[in-house]
Amino acid sequence: MKKTNNSYSIPGFLASAASAGLKKNGGLDLSLIFSQRKAVAAGLFTTNKVKAAPVLLSQKRIKNGFLRAIIANAGCANACTGSKGLNDAVQTANIVAKGLGIDPEETAVASTGVIGAYLPLNLIKKAVPGLISSLSPTGFNSVAEALMTTDSFPKTSYFEGTVGGHPFHLLGIAKGAGMIMPNMATMLSFLLTDIYIDPQTLLPIFQSTVESTFNRITVDGETSTNDTVIIMANGFAGNSRLNASDIKEFKKGLREVMGELAYMIAKDGEGATKVVIIEVKGAATKRDANLAARTVANSPLVKTAIFGEDPNWGRIIAALGKSGIKMEENKVQIWINDVKVTEGGLMTSEKKEKEAALKMKDERITINIHLHQGNQTDRFTTCDLTYDYIKINAAYRS
Amino acid sequence: MKKTNNSYSIPGFLASAASAGLKKNGGLDLSLIFSQRKAVAAGLFTTNKVKAAPVLLSQKRIKNGFLRAIIANAGCANACTGSKGLNDAVQTANIVAKGLGIDPEETAVASTGVIGAYLPLNLIKKAVPGLISSLSPTGFNSVAEALMTTDSFPKTSYFEGTVGGHPFHLLGIAKGAGMIMPNMATMLSFLLTDIYIDPQTLLPIFQSTVESTFNRITVDGETSTNDTVIIMANGFAGNSRLNASDIKEFKKGLREVMGELAYMIAKDGEGATKVVIIEVKGAATKRDANLAARTVANSPLVKTAIFGEDPNWGRIIAALGKSGIKMEENKVQIWINDVKVTEGGLMTSEKKEKEAALKMKDERITINIHLHQGNQTDRFTTCDLTYDYIKINAAYRS
Repeated sequence: MKKTNNSYSIPGFLASAASAGLKKNGGLDLSLIFSQRKAVAAGLFTTNKVKAAPVLLSQKRIKNGFLRAIIANAGCANACTGSKGLNDAVQTANIVAKGLGIDPEETAVASTGVIGAYLPLNLIKKAVPGLISSLSPTGFNSVAEALMTTDSFPKTSYFEGTVGGHPFHLLGIAKGAGMIMPNMATMLSFLLTDIYIDPQTLLPIFQSTVESTFNRITVDGETSTNDTVIIMANGFAGNSRLNASDIKEFKKGLREVMGELAYMIAKDGEGATKVVIIEVKGAATKRDANLAARTVANSPLVKTAIFGEDPNWGRIIAALGKSGIKMEENKVQIWINDVKVTEGGLMTSEKKEKEAALKMKDERITINIHLHQGNQTDRFTTCDLTYDYIKINAAYRS
Repeated sequence: MKKTNNSYSIPGFLASAASAGLKKNGGLDLSLIFSQRKAVAAGLFTTNKVKAAPVLLSQKRIKNGFLRAIIANAGCANACTGSKGLNDAVQTANIVAKGLGIDPEETAVASTGVIGAYLPLNLIKKAVPGLISSLSPTGFNSVAEALMTTDSFPKTSYFEGTVGGHPFHLLGIAKGAGMIMPNMATMLSFLLTDIYIDPQTLLPIFQSTVESTFNRITVDGETSTNDTVIIMANGFAGNSRLNASDIKEFKKGLREVMGELAYMIAKDGEGATKVVIIEVKGAATKRDANLAARTVANSPLVKTAIFGEDPNWGRIIAALGKSGIKMEENKVQIWINDVKVTEGGLMTSEKKEKEAALKMKDERITINIHLHQGNQTDRFTTCDLTYDYIKINAAYRS
């Protein structure tokens, strides 16, 4: 079940946000999520070998399987900041833990923003008392806002379900618009639920849902130094041990919430005017299906053609050809928004191309590819490549 | 030795170009190169699994190790055109061979332009007699012009040397501005020389020179369906079998000519305002050195930062981190135009960043990276990513 209004609350969770002065525009940039009880927690982090200080710290903290709080800032990534940066992350957690009266070991830290700059710890110190005093059951929208960098809208998604007769709630918050590549987490996202679930059950469900949602979107093929996805489950729903049908219900909710957030991130891709879904069928192997969809989704020539509303299937087939998959050119079929533009590796007709060009005026473009090499499938969500991607990224630090 | 004027001629070679009507703007679009004697020839072609018809044909033709003629067209790639496309390529070669009175087996074909459209064979048939009758010893500049698609200038490079007391000449012609990725050939290029060289000596020299020049440039990470590099050596220089010092001289000339053409292609990268050279030192393995340089050279975030003249070394180190190489963040050093912006994975100082920002106003940017993991090095040449790349590629077919 989905709520339509968005003053979400999740039993046992409080949140708040503040303008600490990390963003040049004076907007919300520091946020706090707090669970009134120890919550079962799991996290996934960037696969980039250059990991930001908050990633290194939170990876360690989450190993115990429990968290009470997450402090997140935008405006400064605290990445490539060495031992000073790591100490700044530890200090941030300590200040928050002390203010909340909890163990620093139960406090995770997340950052997003410019790489290579040191965290202005003094600004954070000043802002934390206000953050703590303003914690509220309906503070989650302000958290979503405080996470934004190049994002053009705050991203939240909500689900309500029932397990063993107990209603439970699930809220997802995310930020992400650029440096998006499917390689583990790929942005900041926090999932909060009042369900009771044991860590052994939670972890594999969480991992496989990240794999099918956040790891299936790409904006620019870049992998951030700060990618972090954390889930906290505090048990306020009052359910007992989950049975098979309960697990199914929880999976469904997680899939919906993370799927919606992932879609929002692709839609909000830097400069994007269109969401693009790449569906691959008939691949020889799972790896080929993934590689084919990923390569087409990352092709600048395909993405600029989509921006130009040009059904340039030749660029799609050329991207498949360079991807390294098993393929036979003369078996490839391609549809753009259900119009078949390619049959047996050839143009179907100029009429069909014109028809496809008209359909490309839509804001949502689906490219279906059938390789006829086997029965493996995969699906990626991406966006077009536009002038504004250049504009945003040429001027990002200035 | 380099000539400064550019009405090049190479003994025993003739060339011509014509406006056959393949380009919408009515410009030169069909060109012919002819050797008055059977020439030793070698070729390298795209690694894309989707190969254009002219690539499939020329790959076969060049296996004999000899050629007399190359017919090339711009405006239509004759790729993704199936058996009709292959037949069109064969017909093109046949028409040319018949007109020249040579064996079709000695005739190579090259095409560049839109993928998925059929070659207008009737236009080619009409234009070939004129092409043949206008063959001239100084027709090479018009060939360079007739190869252009999104290129903003024609690309030629010339070298004169001496082997065994005999002067020899080497002319390179190339086209390329987009769909440029170091994966074998990466564009169209023809190298013509009057040196006498046997096929067994030529092939490895040619291959290794392509590897160090054309395979070390990237514009957008795309691999074309039509990449073709062909060298023809007709022996008019009159030298005898090359000794070690002759081979050295020839290698030097080939390296200079192909190096200059490769640089021109990066400089002419679609929409580019700056040439960018990525130099990697201290990699653990050759593969790591290549991967590091290539990943930084292909990073849209690095390339947009360069367009914005922002010394954003954080994006460089993040690109290294995602590349999959062996690295330790705290050992990385980065210089931008000789200003050290990163030491031990950290910013050197804000002063240095400002100094680097000033130097980034140059049209030529060199990024030096030292990984301190071993002693392997590599070097890539690329360009910045700008509004005009989007403009050119969103509207390419319209």
